[in-house]
Amino acid sequence: MRNLHAVVLAGGSGTRFWPASRALRPKQLLPLAGGETLLAATLGRIRDLVPAERTWIITNPQLAAPIQAALPGFPRSQLVVEPEPRDTAPCVALAAARIAAVDADATLAVMPADHVIHPAAAFHDLMRRGAELAADGRTLVTFGVNPTRPATSYGYIEVGEALPGSGAGAYRVARFREKPDLQTAKEFFVSGRFLWNSGIFVWTVPALLAAMEVGNPELAGCAVAMLEAARRGDEATLAIAFRRAPKISIDYAVMEKAPAVAVLRAELEWDDIGSFVRLATVTGQDGEGNSVFQGEGTRAVLHEADGNVVYGEGRRAIALFGVHDLVVVAVDDAVLVCPKSRADDLKVLIQRLRSQGCADLL
Amino acid sequence: MRNLHAVVLAGGSGTRFWPASRALRPKQLLPLAGGETLLAATLGRIRDLVPAERTWIITNPQLAAPIQAALPGFPRSQLVVEPEPRDTAPCVALAAARIAAVDADATLAVMPADHVIHPAAAFHDLMRRGAELAADGRTLVTFGVNPTRPATSYGYIEVGEALPGSGAGAYRVARFREKPDLQTAKEFFVSGRFLWNSGIFVWTVPALLAAMEVGNPELAGCAVAMLEAARRGDEATLAIAFRRAPKISIDYAVMEKAPAVAVLRAELEWDDIGSFVRLATVTGQDGEGNSVFQGEGTRAVLHEADGNVVYGEGRRAIALFGVHDLVVVAVDDAVLVCPKSRADDLKVLIQRLRSQGCADLL
Repeated sequence: MRNLHAVVLAGGSGTRFWPASRALRPKQLLPLAGGETLLAATLGRIRDLVPAERTWIITNPQLAAPIQAALPGFPRSQLVVEPEPRDTAPCVALAAARIAAVDADATLAVMPADHVIHPAAAFHDLMRRGAELAADGRTLVTFGVNPTRPATSYGYIEVGEALPGSGAGAYRVARFREKPDLQTAKEFFVSGRFLWNSGIFVWTVPALLAAMEVGNPELAGCAVAMLEAARRGDEATLAIAFRRAPKISIDYAVMEKAPAVAVLRAELEWDDIGSFVRLATVTGQDGEGNSVFQGEGTRAVLHEADGNVVYGEGRRAIALFGVHDLVVVAVDDAVLVCPKSRADDLKVLIQRLRSQGCADLL
Repeated sequence: MRNLHAVVLAGGSGTRFWPASRALRPKQLLPLAGGETLLAATLGRIRDLVPAERTWIITNPQLAAPIQAALPGFPRSQLVVEPEPRDTAPCVALAAARIAAVDADATLAVMPADHVIHPAAAFHDLMRRGAELAADGRTLVTFGVNPTRPATSYGYIEVGEALPGSGAGAYRVARFREKPDLQTAKEFFVSGRFLWNSGIFVWTVPALLAAMEVGNPELAGCAVAMLEAARRGDEATLAIAFRRAPKISIDYAVMEKAPAVAVLRAELEWDDIGSFVRLATVTGQDGEGNSVFQGEGTRAVLHEADGNVVYGEGRRAIALFGVHDLVVVAVDDAVLVCPKSRADDLKVLIQRLRSQGCADLL
């Protein structure tokens, strides 16, 4: 088997955890994994899968310093910094170029920095099986999670025929489906043919380049230019090629058009904690259905309150009295109160904050 | 006319504005009067009514230092500090003793420190009319406010016959009524015979002592002992007499049993801002019915939010998104979220805070 490298995508800058998350402190840097950051937990999860010198983080220039500050022991040489933020396809191409320059036989396991996955051992098995499937140098491997509810916040993978000789739970991908409406999500849920798209991929560099050539030749051209520049150590050309690459996601540019995509059914607990509403994934719930995250020094006091999500940091009390199904977030310089049902629409509020002179808090 | 003295009762320590108010920072010390404290606004209101040397504040030992800190210019000799907190009857007796010791002809206008009253000129007229009525040395004068709604949070005064020769709006008091239930409040409201009890009184010292003798002889004995001790400058005896006085309110001990009580109909705006729900009295409301108090550096951002009450202090944003009829309070070390309909029950939450190890925040 080729050498497996882990590529942790840590360039995301979502606003769905505002005011806990900020431009310079996105979700992957929130202490949501039992006190450590989701990024640190992701690194911990792959520690026994690949050695440190084959563990890479890729992020944008803005987040490079916060990430280094959060991970003082992480080697600078393994942190790939994009010349500028450009969607996931150029990002993945850059990571592939950097890694292939030092290891021509690399197989890449590409994964988001901010997901919760248990147990680690099942994840390791899955990545190794993915690497075996990808070893033909043609197959792009994805991982699908058994839906536990008709979620509308995830993309779905429709499974096709079983892959012969590849063990249980290995299929061709019939189709990728974007986030569905609730009715469609319910149909997906009952059909049994749909898995949540985990956003985790395994592929070799040749397979990736070939799929880019099929899906987006312009992207493929930039990717090849990056690869060659990285091999030569020509940073200037590498940056130029990156900046020329189309701003497009890896899903649109590659996955949805690739000829040979496999999906492995992932038998593990997985959550992308896409908003405060999913906080229970990391905090659990009390007897009244409240999910409470308390940072150091924070004291949440809930009285006659149920179904709420509370996130607090800093030395403060957060008292909820007689309220239901709210999200209440309190950090040093900002407080948010909204119904759980609106927690997925925070971008609307973010716009308002921007227009009302609060851009400094974003 | 005898010399009018103003006695500001500043010993209250309510919890109905928690977490803005605390044991050492009760409502009268909140900056609810256009940036200044309610206590300062009360002093401002009486500045043109009585001279500084006839303006007194009475409070308990715990609040003496916070009040002096809040009013650096107020003369220490005019601040009467109770030897210990004991309800309003001993408090009023102590103030009367202190003042009578320096001015045997004093008439006292006794008023809470934490009410909102406009305009000041109407208030002055009213106090002067009260002093005239009280000049007979027998009449206790109260002030009643025309109800603007069937409030259940105020005591009521039932007006009796008009007082002959005392001008418009002067009546005997038929009865004092405690805070009514809603049905009774509605009956009071439509009857036109009931006024809100403003908690403001005017009387001479002899009239007060005589009424105490009728209503509560034990209290009267202590009051006389305080008066004599104050005249002699015997602080030790004064304190002993105060501590011996029954813990009882001036309403129960005196007003409800006094033979000659008059009420003047107060034609002015009056509110005791009894809880956050009444915050609009000092902040007004925006187009969506939100009442917002923003301290220095606080930025409240409300989006698709109506009917809420927001109180914020310190450098922070308070964002309400898609919520209705909530009270949201955020200060440096505490946040409160509760429905407006529960804002009058905060004592329940305070108990919970106490039992959950948060007594330091009370």
